[in-house]
Amino acid sequence: MSGFYDKLNEVVQLKKSWLCVGLDPVLEKLPEGIEKSPQGVLRFLREIINATARWTPVYKPNFAYFEALGPEGMSVLKQIIEEIPAGALVIGDAKRGDVGHSSAMYAKTLFETFGCDAATVSPYQGYDSVEPFLSYRDKGTFVLCITSNSGADDFQRPADLYLKVAQKVCEWNQFGNCGLVVGATRPELVEKVRSVSGPMPFLIPGVGTQGGSLENTLQNVADGTPIPALINASRAILYSSSGRDFAEQAAIAAEELWNQINQCRL
Amino acid sequence: MSGFYDKLNEVVQLKKSWLCVGLDPVLEKLPEGIEKSPQGVLRFLREIINATARWTPVYKPNFAYFEALGPEGMSVLKQIIEEIPAGALVIGDAKRGDVGHSSAMYAKTLFETFGCDAATVSPYQGYDSVEPFLSYRDKGTFVLCITSNSGADDFQRPADLYLKVAQKVCEWNQFGNCGLVVGATRPELVEKVRSVSGPMPFLIPGVGTQGGSLENTLQNVADGTPIPALINASRAILYSSSGRDFAEQAAIAAEELWNQINQCRL
Repeated sequence: MSGFYDKLNEVVQLKKSWLCVGLDPVLEKLPEGIEKSPQGVLRFLREIINATARWTPVYKPNFAYFEALGPEGMSVLKQIIEEIPAGALVIGDAKRGDVGHSSAMYAKTLFETFGCDAATVSPYQGYDSVEPFLSYRDKGTFVLCITSNSGADDFQRPADLYLKVAQKVCEWNQFGNCGLVVGATRPELVEKVRSVSGPMPFLIPGVGTQGGSLENTLQNVADGTPIPALINASRAILYSSSGRDFAEQAAIAAEELWNQINQCRL
Repeated sequence: MSGFYDKLNEVVQLKKSWLCVGLDPVLEKLPEGIEKSPQGVLRFLREIINATARWTPVYKPNFAYFEALGPEGMSVLKQIIEEIPAGALVIGDAKRGDVGHSSAMYAKTLFETFGCDAATVSPYQGYDSVEPFLSYRDKGTFVLCITSNSGADDFQRPADLYLKVAQKVCEWNQFGNCGLVVGATRPELVEKVRSVSGPMPFLIPGVGTQGGSLENTLQNVADGTPIPALINASRAILYSSSGRDFAEQAAIAAEELWNQINQCRL
């Protein structure tokens, strides 16, 4: 096992799962019995991870939610990443991008300071803004391609920019460590991205709360290779109960989605 | 004084300066006598700020450099921002962007948790990824338009995407709190952006270490209004001496650039 794709395939096969559990802690949404503080977040996420680890090969903490809690939130993030059990990878969802030395500092932050196995990055500033991430050969870099929000119509879709991004990322994929972020809210675009990208893991948000169709998305993602598409769910799992049974309910929600995904994959 | 433009004009007039000092702390570059640790960074930046405050109305900490130092680095960032003296604004250079609720958390991080007066954001995900920043009416939002790196040729220049971004930001500027990040390495593009953007503050990196021409850039930025273009310098000021006279030398470098900028503005 060496490269990122190998590591990803290993955990995917171990769990028989394309599920990715997003960790987006919001103080106001923490369930009954959990203190609304960074320490409460730590306790909440520990229980969520413990309850869902059976079903998911990948956790995706979104840095925005931890940063909003200040330096203490970043300590919680660091601790949670360190505690992710073996058999699961961590995608640091930070959507970073900057030029030259600054981008190298972001790559260092994601892969060294916080020890993530993969990161999400924004393509707007082009190759030299992404390259510092790619240079970590055994780490995954998921580049934003077509996102799940309405704003995707502003710049991504006009002139097929999202397909040009997919094409460039294909060229940049010298070390076999690239992936694409492809929203589920427009399944027809998923197919177009796949036709350009070739076999490459997709990270797919937008199923569930945002309304994307799992079945249509997974039909369009197929490429006949074992490289997985990761279906992300955050709120639908984290906050499936606001009561003291939140961890139990999160496990049930994760199992259900695991099941649905695997039925669509058959 | 209410909106962001008013606040910006006030400090610009106070200091008679379009200079922006970028705070990019790198442990390996800290001068003689400063400990290579987050606490060393705190001491270093305090002295830099103290020495340069006479010449600059705006400081621009780049989050990448603080994040790479982990949670302790974020504490230093928070403390430094709190200590920026009256008469100067803080642009949180974080180049953030995400969808929906996540973007709202980033805006909260920049404007509330860290108390910045303005932020840099990436446009790739479109309006609803930028809107949570814009909704802070008295805070500034500088959207990446044309950056100073070679990667600008990958997506920003083809099909004039950078001009479409400028146009959209113009439409989004309902509260008079938008600006654009416009690199100095291609002065001819600065003029094109200005022709589309109308009067709006530009944040201009790329002069100095990156080789952009100050004179050509400032000629092309003129729009006959008092809204300033902020010329950013980071390394050229921070690391102008590696000896114990670093603060004194930083003040000299800042004064020189202040002078050069003001001569080009005449």
